[in-house]
Amino acid sequence: MVKGSMDLIDTQRAHAVYADMPPAIEVSGGSAANTAAGVASFGGSAAFIGKVAEDELGAVFAHDIRAAGVDFDIEPLAGAEAAAGTARCLILVTPDAQRTMNTYLGVAAALRPIDVDAALIASAKVLYVEGYLWDDPGAKDVIRTAVAAAREAGTRVSFTLSDGFCVDRHRDEFLELIAGDVDILFANESEICSLYETTDFEVAVSRVVGHVAIACLTRSELGSVILTADGDRISVDAASTNLVDTTGAGDLYAAGVLTGWATGQTLAESGRMGSLAAGEVISHLGARPQKPLSEIWKDHR
Amino acid sequence: MVKGSMDLIDTQRAHAVYADMPPAIEVSGGSAANTAAGVASFGGSAAFIGKVAEDELGAVFAHDIRAAGVDFDIEPLAGAEAAAGTARCLILVTPDAQRTMNTYLGVAAALRPIDVDAALIASAKVLYVEGYLWDDPGAKDVIRTAVAAAREAGTRVSFTLSDGFCVDRHRDEFLELIAGDVDILFANESEICSLYETTDFEVAVSRVVGHVAIACLTRSELGSVILTADGDRISVDAASTNLVDTTGAGDLYAAGVLTGWATGQTLAESGRMGSLAAGEVISHLGARPQKPLSEIWKDHR
Repeated sequence: MVKGSMDLIDTQRAHAVYADMPPAIEVSGGSAANTAAGVASFGGSAAFIGKVAEDELGAVFAHDIRAAGVDFDIEPLAGAEAAAGTARCLILVTPDAQRTMNTYLGVAAALRPIDVDAALIASAKVLYVEGYLWDDPGAKDVIRTAVAAAREAGTRVSFTLSDGFCVDRHRDEFLELIAGDVDILFANESEICSLYETTDFEVAVSRVVGHVAIACLTRSELGSVILTADGDRISVDAASTNLVDTTGAGDLYAAGVLTGWATGQTLAESGRMGSLAAGEVISHLGARPQKPLSEIWKDHR
Repeated sequence: MVKGSMDLIDTQRAHAVYADMPPAIEVSGGSAANTAAGVASFGGSAAFIGKVAEDELGAVFAHDIRAAGVDFDIEPLAGAEAAAGTARCLILVTPDAQRTMNTYLGVAAALRPIDVDAALIASAKVLYVEGYLWDDPGAKDVIRTAVAAAREAGTRVSFTLSDGFCVDRHRDEFLELIAGDVDILFANESEICSLYETTDFEVAVSRVVGHVAIACLTRSELGSVILTADGDRISVDAASTNLVDTTGAGDLYAAGVLTGWATGQTLAESGRMGSLAAGEVISHLGARPQKPLSEIWKDHR
């Protein structure tokens, strides 16, 4: 495994990795689903488009995301089609709080353009898309359908690069998507550097300005930088926290920024909401908030 | 529900409670299993006797307890007998960190005297039994078999009262078991008061001295009191911690005390190990340690 990155694995590898894993906890996850749960935890309104199977993990996923206050209306896959089961990710968290992910996609890859509810997207201020999905050709069609629905309705499009290796696999398509269709881009340092094939963060910064209207670049304990096409550069501090597990840090940062942006906060305030949300989720195992982010935000604004 | 207590529920009630629950995490548990995992986390040697079904939760339970370093050799129930499924507990944690438990026993109640490995018990310094099991007539036979095996081999017997209502249901049998067969008793304030039908902790203390060789009485943030038949009274401070979820506090306290006692520490040191272990487990959701207790103990001894 490459520490800190995400690998796609098959059933056989999943069994082998699990057999070697230390005691584990099971928590609902999924990058964009974590973000949706974060938006709802701030009191925002969010819906999730994704596919689970009619199995135990699928039931737990659906329970958790709905109980978090997120709309999730897509029927679980049943019968022979559902044999691959609900997606799962075996995550190894090292004592330095870094996470290394082994993802078995299962029926998540069975999402189809017909699952995209254009009216739902039209009702939203912003559509949020995760780069991970690009690894699956079928899911890529879903993204293109969703992005087209957003453009048509005037819904803004945000996109996260998700993983440096993922960027490496799809660089040209990502560059084109960002230039043509993305309004708000999320990336961490290694992802944005991978996108522009540089090792110098400031080079990547200079490239992203003008490439996209708003770019939110996260730098772990250094906080984040928000760049606008107008040339604004906003530095946001990381929240001070008890670091346990970095899984979901980027997902929850995006939740804070998007909630702030969609509710008319300044970009600086939106960034601060992102830092607070990320700070909560890295203070415990699992990538979903355990305390209401609305309360944390109220205490810190 | 009665806040802070444990209720046994059936499948129908389990579905109803789960439907109303907020987002949840899934963690292996079970009172005595948590204690065994705690002993192993201190570097001690522990084995667990209990029954799971051949289902997803059973596989997770078996993985987690073995990965924690605990011997667990009992085959999962399969086929028609296993229809009830592996036991589960729906735990509601309130903002004051108190936990309220709804337990569906499933196949845990299918444990039988034949599952008790007398040679395993004979090889141990101490057998640890949880009071919860007394609610099931079949499990009660298992306990009597295990206790008899321990007495025969000279293995000490420890017992935890588990829950005030549980004590209320079985007071006479518990009093008899403690007088006749228990060497080390674990109870919290409400349990020991329920046992002796008093509301005054000091009255309960005066009754337990002489009733059992060693009594370990926990009092939440007030720490614990260890009493011996010789009249020693040892006060142990609670560990300072970031209180999140009290689930497993008693289980891990017992793990610390038993590990200390079995490895020749003084009762005061053993109590301190109990406090450290309880302090770790209440600092996060879930009743299994997330950091090696051996390291925490090394840092604090």
